[in-house]
Amino acid sequence: MKWKRSERLVEMTRHLLEHPHQLIPLTVFSERFQAAKSSISEDLTIIKETFEESGAGKLVTVSGAAGGVKYIPLMSDRAAREVIVQLIEELSHSDRLLPGGYLYMTDLLGNPQLMDKVGRVFAGAFANQRIDVIMTVATKGIPIAQAIARHLNVPVVIVRRDSKVTEGSTVSINYVSGSARRIQTMVLSKRSMKSGQRVLITDDFMKAGGTMLGMRNLVEEFDCELAGAAVLVESEHSEEVLVEKYRSLVKLRKVNERDRTIELDEGNYFKEGGDEA
Amino acid sequence: MKWKRSERLVEMTRHLLEHPHQLIPLTVFSERFQAAKSSISEDLTIIKETFEESGAGKLVTVSGAAGGVKYIPLMSDRAAREVIVQLIEELSHSDRLLPGGYLYMTDLLGNPQLMDKVGRVFAGAFANQRIDVIMTVATKGIPIAQAIARHLNVPVVIVRRDSKVTEGSTVSINYVSGSARRIQTMVLSKRSMKSGQRVLITDDFMKAGGTMLGMRNLVEEFDCELAGAAVLVESEHSEEVLVEKYRSLVKLRKVNERDRTIELDEGNYFKEGGDEA
Repeated sequence: MKWKRSERLVEMTRHLLEHPHQLIPLTVFSERFQAAKSSISEDLTIIKETFEESGAGKLVTVSGAAGGVKYIPLMSDRAAREVIVQLIEELSHSDRLLPGGYLYMTDLLGNPQLMDKVGRVFAGAFANQRIDVIMTVATKGIPIAQAIARHLNVPVVIVRRDSKVTEGSTVSINYVSGSARRIQTMVLSKRSMKSGQRVLITDDFMKAGGTMLGMRNLVEEFDCELAGAAVLVESEHSEEVLVEKYRSLVKLRKVNERDRTIELDEGNYFKEGGDEA
Repeated sequence: MKWKRSERLVEMTRHLLEHPHQLIPLTVFSERFQAAKSSISEDLTIIKETFEESGAGKLVTVSGAAGGVKYIPLMSDRAAREVIVQLIEELSHSDRLLPGGYLYMTDLLGNPQLMDKVGRVFAGAFANQRIDVIMTVATKGIPIAQAIARHLNVPVVIVRRDSKVTEGSTVSINYVSGSARRIQTMVLSKRSMKSGQRVLITDDFMKAGGTMLGMRNLVEEFDCELAGAAVLVESEHSEEVLVEKYRSLVKLRKVNERDRTIELDEGNYFKEGGDEA
């Protein structure tokens, strides 16, 4: 079948969106659509310009025999700010207040379109670095980790609190949780990472950063390298944060249980302190 | 800015793919692109035909004042079979064998492109039913649940084994696990579902179906309705399966720990028995 340009544009757009951060040789397109490489190149120019115009990301073209085209999902600062504003708006409802000053966030983590946007914001922020793995701790960080992983096209590894038979041999570390100063354990399947990989750690909530520190120790235990840290909501607290570099979207300033008010602010995402390691 | 047809096609394709199962009024497109509704309709016809040709899914057009266009992700039988073949191929490697005859599957659950395909297969199978919520049990079912949820554009709720302060008030049930015949507990945040919702339950692995049965009891406890069950890998076993209707992609026939061989087969996905409730 011979494809028209309009049909090629639709199908190539779909293919690129479904294969982010993956180099696609132009021959894949020219053979599939029975079209000359020059036509494919023209199609890609249209897609590239449209993606740039709408802030969806960029197309990177690599020339030569091993060349091709790669789609890098990005998010404009304006769109990233809209996500942050939406999160703050959602989180500020007083019925989210739980005993002990905790915030109910489970519904947001279960919202696929919101998680997709959060994943895109972080994937855009770390798009220029080599990231080989996204690491998180079960359970609540998983939706964020998976959303980032989808946009960066890298695997997710999930750290657990306890060892499971279905994980095979595991590596286990102890660390001190930040606020409660308790000794806690983290377990990760031995075959989940190879030495030398660059790891982005992520979680839904961070106070003093004990869990993040535990993940960092685990990264080192595997002879891997910390590439950065991404947090959905960080909480104001008196002590120093245990990880130096992280990016957060929202900052929880204060919870007043008597008035049932929640004070939220933008996280450090747009600030210099949030720069990746 | 005035958009050319080629640019509109790229941008509308992207918008539709990122908003599955969501009715988009044509005015959204005509206003954004400064184009007549008749031009938008022509664009949609091209996208519709291309999606159908490539098996990406269908565009449903609803006419009238409250009308618009909706993208339904689907997967052709051929593409679904390719996913199943890929899963069987991956799972048959003998180094996946763990003590006790378990299979290491964590890496597959952490592979975002594979999970995206699995999610699309199940989302396609349940596309014609009303599904309001995807339910799974922490931890390993989460990637599958999230992938299905993204393609159906419905929330994920995660059942836990223990109650957590960040979940607020919870509903807890006891059930008998299928193989070990132990009494186990499942906990779900009270505000995670409303009565009357239709729930698709999912998990990565099913033997006698105890966990699935627990989820079904929880669905009933919330006055909700079971819409179906989706399982990545089901295991051959002597007893009767505790849930009547489910769809599985892969069936684990036999594990031979001495020879280190794993016998796998297609699940019931394409068989009549797999029809949804």
